[in-house]
Amino acid sequence: MASTGASSTNCKVILANTIAKKLLSEVQEGLSKLQGPPLLVGFLASSDPAARVYADWTGKTCRENGFAFELREVPKDAMEDALLAANADPSVHGIIVYYPIFSSRQDQYLQQIVSISKDVEGLSHRYIFNMYQNIRFLDPGTDTKKSILPCTPLAVIKILEHLHVYNTILPYGNRLFGHTVTVINRSEVVGRPLAALLANDGACVYSVDVEGVQQFHRGQGLKKSRHEVEEKPGWTLENCLPVSDVVISGVPGEKFKVPVELLREGAVCINFSSEKNFTPEVKEKASIYVPAIGKVTIVVLLRNLLRMVQNRADTDATPADAIDKPGTIEEKPSA
Amino acid sequence: MASTGASSTNCKVILANTIAKKLLSEVQEGLSKLQGPPLLVGFLASSDPAARVYADWTGKTCRENGFAFELREVPKDAMEDALLAANADPSVHGIIVYYPIFSSRQDQYLQQIVSISKDVEGLSHRYIFNMYQNIRFLDPGTDTKKSILPCTPLAVIKILEHLHVYNTILPYGNRLFGHTVTVINRSEVVGRPLAALLANDGACVYSVDVEGVQQFHRGQGLKKSRHEVEEKPGWTLENCLPVSDVVISGVPGEKFKVPVELLREGAVCINFSSEKNFTPEVKEKASIYVPAIGKVTIVVLLRNLLRMVQNRADTDATPADAIDKPGTIEEKPSA
Repeated sequence: MASTGASSTNCKVILANTIAKKLLSEVQEGLSKLQGPPLLVGFLASSDPAARVYADWTGKTCRENGFAFELREVPKDAMEDALLAANADPSVHGIIVYYPIFSSRQDQYLQQIVSISKDVEGLSHRYIFNMYQNIRFLDPGTDTKKSILPCTPLAVIKILEHLHVYNTILPYGNRLFGHTVTVINRSEVVGRPLAALLANDGACVYSVDVEGVQQFHRGQGLKKSRHEVEEKPGWTLENCLPVSDVVISGVPGEKFKVPVELLREGAVCINFSSEKNFTPEVKEKASIYVPAIGKVTIVVLLRNLLRMVQNRADTDATPADAIDKPGTIEEKPSA
Repeated sequence: MASTGASSTNCKVILANTIAKKLLSEVQEGLSKLQGPPLLVGFLASSDPAARVYADWTGKTCRENGFAFELREVPKDAMEDALLAANADPSVHGIIVYYPIFSSRQDQYLQQIVSISKDVEGLSHRYIFNMYQNIRFLDPGTDTKKSILPCTPLAVIKILEHLHVYNTILPYGNRLFGHTVTVINRSEVVGRPLAALLANDGACVYSVDVEGVQQFHRGQGLKKSRHEVEEKPGWTLENCLPVSDVVISGVPGEKFKVPVELLREGAVCINFSSEKNFTPEVKEKASIYVPAIGKVTIVVLLRNLLRMVQNRADTDATPADAIDKPGTIEEKPSA
């Protein structure tokens, strides 16, 4: 990468592609054990050009990596029926819907239409509930079917594993113990679930948005089995950044920049916005900088699709009611 | 280990023995490539019972692991001549002297009598100079002969590598970048060299003793090639501990205890004192606790002995003057 001044600093710039390749080889190993290529079906009703670009990119990545992909362009009023038909069709293994469609609460209704056994994006209430509750499996007791995590937050976690921020010396589930993380963005699709996942894994997380700062944490000595959230009235980035060894930013829009002067010396910095939230000066302060994560996110989507197929194969040999009880999500670090 | 309350906390207690075993297998691999067992000779003039215990323990560890050990008990006034004779004797591969002997500056004079090619403890001025200067090899340019590091500080570094505090994603030499470490003890044999080694590897180190606090650091963005030291007038543990993710304590005497209430949640805590510098409550706060390091130190001693033999084999095939120029110490993390 031709990064300005990178060679004159001690900051290691790590590109998403490097991490994506490692994950992809794991996905391909799983794929090789299946009887045929899984089919992912994408649903597009949006005229949003970004949605179409994302759809095209999904298709390309699928085909390059041995997955089948089919794009179904559907008028928005026919979307609900189209999704129900795909839910019922055993040849469809995974469903991805390109939002926005109605650009309203109706989009969230549609999200819940997708069968949880085909929801590769991990947006079903059941998955999101499990994630916030730190429940890692769909089949409690037997613990064979991992719950699905939403793609972008999971991509960030896979990146933190690759960077050795997750310490594999610590017991699984507490591997971020001792880390203080600032997440700038508290959207329902990325920022808030990410803060919850990191806190469930033992980090002290400051979740920052225009509304203010919240702390996500499992308490002193991680006594609690899942995170709790505490408002930090009056707190700003000035309070969070100097104490954070990891800073993850995903603010849309060109205007926002993380104030480099507040960063802790040697912090690990990750940008998940499509805009550049960090100025090039970040490399004067950070030990590791990941400028974008999109390529990891798409591999995580394929990984979720693979897991759908694997979970389904297991289900065929399991009583149907076994998958309806709450269990525990397991997103086992690979490192 | 029967550690009080360990099961009710999320602190992982790691015993030196676990780490020692891993290092020992590396040492034994090197040993298997030699033609015969290296001979370590210990010199004891002291009536100090701790010195005799250490001597017996060295002998036992040597013999159990395929090294030869011989204890020479020598009156203190005959020590200098005895060391010179061992320096000249090609059958002796390593020399260890059990201090105190004169309990005065004369002991430091004796330390410098031991040939640098047999100084397994790494106390020769040449080695200590290289360590402070961040010079890692004895043969600059060719970089094949690693300089020797003093055993106890090196044992702490091997422990930090095992605990993944050294991040192998970062370039060698900067793998502690982003860590803040407090070292309580600034003796010339352990605390001060340890602070220097950690800072040379990229950490921000607070070195604390009764005289006060000093910061060892390579500057913003690690711009400097070796650490510099800055006095922190008025600073105490109250300033250092809350910002330190690693706390290493080696205070002799039963009275001193690290104030647990000042520790950062999830800190990594290591005790290198023969006394317990941490109370059992440390496990309520720390993510990892290493209660003692002695067994690692003795394996590091054997590792240095092995390196002496390897360096000597190389020297026999190298022009004599090549080993007299300053170079760079390389203490390659094994993780």
